[in-house]
This record gives sequence, structure tokens and C-alpha cells, in this order.
Amino acid sequence: MYEPLPEIQMLSTLIELQRLKRLDRTGWTLRGLPNGTESVAAHSFGVSVTAMLLADKFVARDIAVDVEKVLRIALLHDWAEVRVGDMPRTATLYFGSEARKQAETAAFTDVVEEVDSEGSYTNLYKDYEQRESLEARLVKAADVLDLLIQVLALERAGARGLDEFWDVAEKPEFNLEGDAKQIVLELLQSILKARGELHRNV
Amino acid sequence: MYEPLPEIQMLSTLIELQRLKRLDRTGWTLRGLPNGTESVAAHSFGVSVTAMLLADKFVARDIAVDVEKVLRIALLHDWAEVRVGDMPRTATLYFGSEARKQAETAAFTDVVEEVDSEGSYTNLYKDYEQRESLEARLVKAADVLDLLIQVLALERAGARGLDEFWDVAEKPEFNLEGDAKQIVLELLQSILKARGELHRNV
Amino acid sequence: MYEPLPEIQMLSTLIELQRLKRLDRTGWTLRGLPNGTESVAAHSFGVSVTAMLLADKFVARDIAVDVEKVLRIALLHDWAEVRVGDMPRTATLYFGSEARKQAETAAFTDVVEEVDSEGSYTNLYKDYEQRESLEARLVKAADVLDLLIQVLALERAGARGLDEFWDVAEKPEFNLEGDAKQIVLELLQSILKARGELHRNV
Amino acid sequence: MYEPLPEIQMLSTLIELQRLKRLDRTGWTLRGLPNGTESVAAHSFGVSVTAMLLADKFVARDIAVDVEKVLRIALLHDWAEVRVGDMPRTATLYFGSEARKQAETAAFTDVVEEVDSEGSYTNLYKDYEQRESLEARLVKAADVLDLLIQVLALERAGARGLDEFWDVAEKPEFNLEGDAKQIVLELLQSILKARGELHRNV
Amino acid sequence: MYEPLPEIQMLSTLIELQRLKRLDRTGWTLRGLPNGTESVAAHSFGVSVTAMLLADKFVARDIAVDVEKVLRIALLHDWAEVRVGDMPRTATLYFGSEARKQAETAAFTDVVEEVDSEGSYTNLYKDYEQRESLEARLVKAADVLDLLIQVLALERAGARGLDEFWDVAEKPEFNLEGDAKQIVLELLQSILKARGELHRNV
Amino acid sequence: MYEPLPEIQMLSTLIELQRLKRLDRTGWTLRGLPNGTESVAAHSFGVSVTAMLLADKFVARDIAVDVEKVLRIALLHDWAEVRVGDMPRTATLYFGSEARKQAETAAFTDVVEEVDSEGSYTNLYKDYEQRESLEARLVKAADVLDLLIQVLALERAGARGLDEFWDVAEKPEFNLEGDAKQIVLELLQSILKARGELHRNV
Repeated sequence: MYEPLPEIQMLSTLIELQRLKRLDRTGWTLRGLPNGTESVAAHSFGVSVTAMLLADKFVARDIAVDVEKVLRIALLHDWAEVRVGDMPRTATLYFGSEARKQAETAAFTDVVEEVDSEGSYTNLYKDYEQRESLEARLVKAADVLDLLIQVLALERAGARGLDEFWDVAEKPEFNLEGDAKQIVLELLQSILKARGELHRNV
Repeated sequence: MYEPLPEIQMLSTLIELQRLKRLDRTGWTLRGLPNGTESVAAHSFGVSVTAMLLADKFVARDIAVDVEKVLRIALLHDWAEVRVGDMPRTATLYFGSEARKQAETAAFTDVVEEVDSEGSYTNLYKDYEQRESLEARLVKAADVLDLLIQVLALERAGARGLDEFWDVAEKPEFNLEGDAKQIVLELLQSILKARGELHRNV
Repeated sequence: MYEPLPEIQMLSTLIELQRLKRLDRTGWTLRGLPNGTESVAAHSFGVSVTAMLLADKFVARDIAVDVEKVLRIALLHDWAEVRVGDMPRTATLYFGSEARKQAETAAFTDVVEEVDSEGSYTNLYKDYEQRESLEARLVKAADVLDLLIQVLALERAGARGLDEFWDVAEKPEFNLEGDAKQIVLELLQSILKARGELHRNV
Repeated sequence: MYEPLPEIQMLSTLIELQRLKRLDRTGWTLRGLPNGTESVAAHSFGVSVTAMLLADKFVARDIAVDVEKVLRIALLHDWAEVRVGDMPRTATLYFGSEARKQAETAAFTDVVEEVDSEGSYTNLYKDYEQRESLEARLVKAADVLDLLIQVLALERAGARGLDEFWDVAEKPEFNLEGDAKQIVLELLQSILKARGELHRNV
Repeated sequence: MYEPLPEIQMLSTLIELQRLKRLDRTGWTLRGLPNGTESVAAHSFGVSVTAMLLADKFVARDIAVDVEKVLRIALLHDWAEVRVGDMPRTATLYFGSEARKQAETAAFTDVVEEVDSEGSYTNLYKDYEQRESLEARLVKAADVLDLLIQVLALERAGARGLDEFWDVAEKPEFNLEGDAKQIVLELLQSILKARGELHRNV
Repeated sequence: MYEPLPEIQMLSTLIELQRLKRLDRTGWTLRGLPNGTESVAAHSFGVSVTAMLLADKFVARDIAVDVEKVLRIALLHDWAEVRVGDMPRTATLYFGSEARKQAETAAFTDVVEEVDSEGSYTNLYKDYEQRESLEARLVKAADVLDLLIQVLALERAGARGLDEFWDVAEKPEFNLEGDAKQIVLELLQSILKARGELHRNV
């Protein structure tokens, strides 16, 4: 059909990342919610969308932010999970936060090996892990906010026993400043307000 | 906890888009695969990742492409489905391709109403629907390629009865030219080769 | 084993309708309930059973009703969904109620093409879509009542966020009269009473 | 909203029958297919549809058949399962075929108690269990045929290990005669032919 | 790879028992919880673990108990279900308690036929069915307690409509005495207390 | 109902272990099989049953083995996963085998803290991790054999893409000797034979 071409190096990366579409976020199943509640891929989509909308608010208030970089980080921030799994939070207690970061970074590097001759994906990943750039911190905020919006959606549908997720909302450590911080806190505030209304009505 | 702030307009958009995490792609369930095979959100993640890797190949071969725009289009290209559902292909026969586009565009506009005072999301969506820009056509290619890689992954896991999805691969209409076309065809080629190997081994 | 017979024209229709056994009703997944909550086939079963019991009440109160016709309409009223999907309610806003009806009628006609040389299935479908006959209106009432009983069952099992489904119960438009109307309202009333008790106990 | 009416006796029957929408047919899960493959309600829908199409073929060939009765039997033939479960075939070996029938008949009688002051549902059920009438035998044929079409659909989607279901197709005991028998055998024949083609292509 | 050996008689037993990993406990699906809530195998694991911890408490208070026997009974007590299914409680009403026991014992005997030349598994099963030994009664208590802990876990996750399961906790008939009884009642008590706290908080 | 008793320390352990009933084995979902294919609890049940049958073969051939100890180890060998998750095999590459063992041992110790004043559960766990005793090595063999029987069952049901699991069967390192080794290899042999027959037939 086509004449044979030199094979581009991408397919095995994409095939491996397909697996994130099915990998359950263990936080839900460990708390008694059904399998299939949320895949890692679906969460990554949620984080990316949240990050895009937040970044556009940043831009609207004249905060200098590289939106392309934001979206790249958001899309790739959980790729290591295809090799190490979606470890529950408690796992960090036993492996240690630093060992976990190292292992995930090594896993990420192997996942992208085929496509990362320049090291640019790995650099973005490391930036995210270290929360170095504003873009990395923005994505981390989006990661937390998407989690809380997911919890809110589950609670609206009747799920209970998810209170511990709201603890993070009590003392957020977004490491942002000025208007950036304010925008993120506003969104957090509106999530908390929506949750308050939910439980007032029950 | 925080002093009340003027609520930013984003939350109800994000809550609505959460729904894509659970919405099944009907193509699989209609062909007898289990519920939960792939959500619209997981597919959007796959398209975005594929689009990012393709765009980086474009850049590597000096094709001028706006990667930020690519990623934005990829992330938002299926948002209308939260209001109209993931209609099977056959639906287009009965509604008409034009009516479907109009309905989806109207739905998209309503979904983003709260966050789209500038109309920029809607413009990206229309661009995608019309395949106007190179970026839109690149995302469309990624949409097809992610579908085929998903089919390949399902077939590797034992699924059958998905032959009709490969028809599109026979006469691809990506509307790309030159190196851009070649890169996309190379990836397609390597997918077809992997599939050929799969069925040779069975 | 058997001597070859002229193939009767039924099998591809039946194979296609099998797909309804797996197709999720999108109303539940869009509201955060798990995939597999209710298939279109399971709903059609519920409507048919409800319609049969209602029709027998009609008969018991000497209302002239063609029960065979009732059951036929109930069984076939959602067959078009195998081609156009189970569109969420909001879809109608964007396609228009009339376009949706036309598309679904065209899809239905194609689904039954093999078995409907007389046009009798299509006629029953059109009757249902237009709510022309008493039987069609009875099935429409059963369609709404089965939905509400499903919501009640889900709420009893802990589901929340389904309030909007009860709005339809506030101002029912069953287009029935006399004893027929009264029977349907009685059942509706007992559903509402059961729901009231559920939420009193929580 | 409405003035209180004497409650009609139907709701608890309908609530109980809702449970069939979720009850898995154990034949599939015991053979390693995923939970949610087919509910009892979905199967009942399949049987009813198959029975309707078959009955219409009977009518077309001037076989006297009461279609209303066919549809009633098809819809109610598995209601006892809501109380005794969907017992696997092997269960009959240990309980005995007669004890199983008696238990299921007693369960059916209790399920419909509220709505069956005339005993008409129970009479239809007993007719089905004894295969007395032509209508009962037609529904039994539809029960087997829907099972085989479901197996065919699963095999087309990649399922294996279901060979034992085809044994029944080898020596069908439909207890029908003349044209009625021929129509059913024709459909069976076309199912077997479709299966043959499926496995020739693999 | 290896030299052929005389095949040990175990594999078909193990293959058949694999099926319990997928077989749903019908109690949950009949009450509107999702398919996959709890498999028979997962329940057997829960009963075995509960029995082990209870037995160790017995030992700690100098109650003579054969822990190996406890664990054997716990692991095998539901194997008959692979042939007769997980019958809902109501099924016993229609089959009769004695007939159910006989059928399940016969099924169990067939399941273990290949590995039970000594009859020791069947003897343990009969002991359990008759609650003859202390070990059998301990496992029965663990069976009830695991059920209640599962209900508690589901309620914590938002499930409702499971009140009837708590009735058994009102008048437990564990047929135990002295310290053994006290240990079991203590655990029951702490379950009830945890449940009380759950519903006080809602 | 009962007079208050000093609460025994067991319930929170049991509640936490309930979570294993829902936690998916990630090996399956990462390979494209549906969520809910096998829970950690269901696998633990399978390992325990396999270990019991194997241990009884050992006893029958006069190999001294502590069956109670075997069953205890089999039941508890995966409890750490409730805190660290079911990490895929590749995870070990990045964390290191030793760090993984240490983390899991620490997690296990915390899981049983409430019930393990004597340290006996932790000792059994360490024994298993080090494969010190014959009983530990027997359970490890059962762990591998249950995995392979599960793969065989999935392949019989149509799953594909699981070849890599059979690699372990090529060069088994069960660290057993004499008759013990022979019994395990016999079972392995019969699994491989069954698999060979499966694929001959396809």
C-alpha cells in the first residue's frame, strides 16, 4: 500500500503509554470505590485541562507563563506510573520520598528513551519533580485541584469516606506567589464552597 | 480558612469536563468489549500525547508548527461529547455530517461559555472541525493514530471483530503534505507492521 | 447435520440488537455512576415489564387497550439507539427535537430493514414517536416510570446527585385521560412516596 | 402535588424486578468473562425480541400463534431468578431438575403475589416450565437462540472457551413440528453458518 | 524441558476453583451495588484471615483450637459454589435448608473428587455444614463477621440499603461458649460500635 | 444489646485488609485486560488453596511440612500491598529488589501492629521474603503456580499477549529438592501440557 519507509521511533512509546488508559488510580479502589473509577490517563487529561484553564487565567492577569511548557508537563507528569504503578500515598512512607522520586525519574527516562534523544522530556519531568519552574508549580496545583474536583464529583454521586482528601485543601502548599497564588486559591475556594453546599443539602 | 474571594469562573466547566473521565467510547461496547474499555478522557489523553510526539518530530524536521496550539486543540477536541455523547459513526449517516458539526459546535460553545469570553477556545474548536490549520490536521491525524494504536493494544490482549477500524488505515486522508505527511505515514506504517506481526504469530 | 435451508432473514437484525445488551445508558455514567449501571437492553426490559403490568391494570378497569401492541412497542422503542447511541438529554438541545426524531426513525428503519417487509415495526415506531395511540402513550408512561424506579433503586443503594430526574415527576405530561391517567398517577404517587420515605430515614 | 390515591399494588414487584438489571448471568463469569457481560434483564430482552421476530415468521406462514402470550411468557420467564439467583447448569445436577422447577415456581409465585390476584402470570410461568403450549415452546426456542447469538457475539469479540454452549445446537430438542420447527431450525442454521465463517476466518 | 512425569491429580481442581475469583457474591448486585463488588474468592480470603486472627485470640486465652483445621475449613467452605452458584438467601426458602445442604455437599464432593482419595476435605466440609467442631463454629463466626466488616466498608464508601445485613448482628447464634463466645462478641461489638460512629457522623 | 466489653484489637486490621478485595492486580490491567480481572485478595485465596493441596501431596509422600504454617504464610504473604500497592514487576528494576523488600516488610509490620504483639506474623512474613523455611518456599511455588493457572484460565477465555508470564515456567527456581521439587514440577508440567493443548486447538 505504501512504499516502505524508515521506521520512526515512536510506536513502542505510544503503545506503552496506552496502558495508562486502563491503569486504575488506586486511591479509589483502596477506599472501596469500584474498579474503573478513574484511570491514570483520565486523571492526566483532567490535570492538563485544569492546567490550561489556570494558565489562561495567569495570562489574563499578565503573569508570564509558558503555556506550551505547562501543557507538556501536565501531559507527561504521570508517565512513570506505567512502569512503577500508581502507588498509594502510604507507599511513600515506606520507600521514602527521595527514593520514590529517583525510581520514578529512572522509570520515566526509560519510558521516553526512544523519543528523547535531546533529553527534553526528561528535563521537563525533573523540573516537575523538583517544582523548579512556575510552570511545574502550576501543574502541581492543577494536579491537586483535579483530585479535589474528582472527589467532589464522586461525593455528589454518593461516595463517602473520602474526607482525608480534603485535608490537603486545609493547608495548601502550592509554592506560588502574588496573583498566581490568588488565582489558584480562588479556584480552591470555589471547590470548597461547592463541597460545603453539597453537604448542607444532604 | 481563607478570606472570601471573588469566585473565578472555571469550576462548573471543570466539573462538567470531569464527566468525560467516565463516559465510555461507544465504539468498543457496541462491538462487544466490556464497559470501561476506554473513556473519552483517556482517549483525549492518548490523542494529546500522540500529537505532542508527532509535533516534536515536525519540529525536528523544521516544519513550522505551533506546538502550544496543537496541544490545546488535542485537549479540547472532544469536549462537546459531554453534552451530545460519544455518538457512534453510524449516527452521522442519520443526522448528516453538517448537522452533527453544527450541533457539536453549539454544544462546545455552551460548555466553555464560562471561560471563553475571548472566544479563543471556540475558535480552536472550529479550526479543528474545519481542519483549517496545520495544527488542526495534525491533531486529526493523532486522533486516528491513537484509535489504531488502541485497537492494536486491544487485539494484542485478545479482542477480535475490530477489522473495520483498519479500513481507515487503507486510504488515509490526513490532508498533510511533504515531510508532515511522511512522518504521519511512517507512524501509520509502523502500526500496520506491528499489527501484521501480531496476526502472523497467532 | 441439518439439510441446508433457505436462510431466513433475521439473524443480522438479532446480532445487531445484541449490542444493546452492552450499551450503557449515558445518563448514569455522565452523573458519576459506574459503567455498567444500566444497559439499554436492561432498560427496555424494565419498560416492557412496567408496560405489561400497567396494561393489565388498564384491562382490569375495562380500558380498551391492545396489550400485544403495548408489548411490541415497549420492546422496540429504543432499537434506533444501536445506530445513533444513547444520546444524553442535552443532545436534543443541539440537534433539535425534530431532527433527532427524524434521524432515529431513519436509523430504526434501517435496523429492521431485513425483517420489516410489511413496515409494521416501523409503523409501531412512528406511532410511539408521535404518541398517537393509547398504547404508545402507555409505553411512554412506562418509560418514565421505569426510569424513576431505577433512580429510586440507585438512591436506595447510596447514589446521590440524581435530583433532576425527579423534576419530570413534578409535572408529568403523560397525555392520558380518565382511569388510564389515574392508574399511571397512582403508580407515580407510590414511587414518590417510597422516595419520600427513603430520604426521611437517612 | 396530587391528592392521595389508593396505592395500586405494583411498585414492590417492579422494584424487585429492577434487580434483574444488575444480576449477572453466571455462565459467563464462571468461564472467565468479565463481570457485567450480560444481565438477566438484558437476556430477557434478547429472548423477547427473538420471540417476537420468530412469532411474526410463524404468523407469516399461517401458523396460529398468540403473539401477546408469547411476549408475556418471554418477559416473565426468568423472574424467579430474582429470588433464587441465576443458577449455573451444573446446579441442576445436585438439586434435581424437578426440585429446581418446584423451587423456581414457588419463588415466581411469591414475586408476583402483589399483582397476580387472578393467577394469570403464574399460569403462564407454569405453562413455560412444562412447555405445554406452542407459545411456551416458541419462547424456549428463543431462549436457546438468544444464548447462541450471544455466544456468537462474544466469540466475534474474541472470547474463547465457550464451545460447550454449541453442543446444544447439535441436537436441538425444540419440541416443535412442521413449519414452526422449520423456521426455528432455519434460524439455528444461519447462526451455525455465521459461526462457521467466524472460525474459518481466524 | 522437563522429562515427562506422571501427572499429579490436582490441576483440574485448581482450574475449577479459579472460577471463584470472578464469581460475584449476588447479595451485592441484587441490592444495586456494581458488579465486581466482591468475589466469592475474595470473601473466602476475608473469612480465612478473620478466622486466623480469631483463632490466635483463642489460643492466647488458652482455648484449645486446631488452627490448621480452622484455616482448612475457612479456605474450602465455599467451594461448592463453583457448581451451584452463590445462591441468594431467599433461595433457601424455596429449596429448603436441608435440600440445599445436600446439594452443596454433593457438589463439593464432586469438586474435590480428584484430590480427596482420603475423604478428608469432604469430612471438613461436612463438619462445617453441621457446625460440629469448635473449629467449624469458629469459621462460621468468621463468615458472619467478614460479611459485616464488608458491609461496614461499603457503607463507609457511601453504599446504603444494606440494613438487613445488620439484623443478623442483633441476635447472633454463634453456638460458642465461654471465652470463645466472648472473643467473638467483642469483635462483633467493635464492628457495631464502628458502624454507630459512621452513621452518627453522616 | 450486649454489655460493653473491652474492645479487642483486631478490627482496624481487618478493615484495612478488606481493601485487598478490591485492589486490582496491575499485571492484568497493564496488559489491556479489564479492570476487576483479579483482586489481590482473590489471588491470595488462589495461592492458599494451591499451597494447601500441594502441602497435602507433600504429606502424602512423607515430606515433613508444617501445614498450618504454610496456610498462614499463604494468607498473609501479600498484606503489605494494602499500603504499597500491587507494584508491577518493572517497579523492582527502579526501586531495587532489596529496597522493595525492606519497604514491604516495614509496611507489613505496620499493617499487623495491632494484632502482632508477639511478632509472629512479622516473623512469618520475613521467613517468606527470605524463603528460609520449606514452608515459605512451598508458598512461593504456589504463588507462581496460581499465577500460571490464572494465565491459563484467561487464555482459555480468549485473552492474548500474556506470553511473558510463561517465561518464568521455563526456568523455575523453586529452591526445592527431592520429592518436594518433583511434586511442584509435576504440577507445573501439567499446567504446561494444558496450555499446549489449548494452543494446539486454536
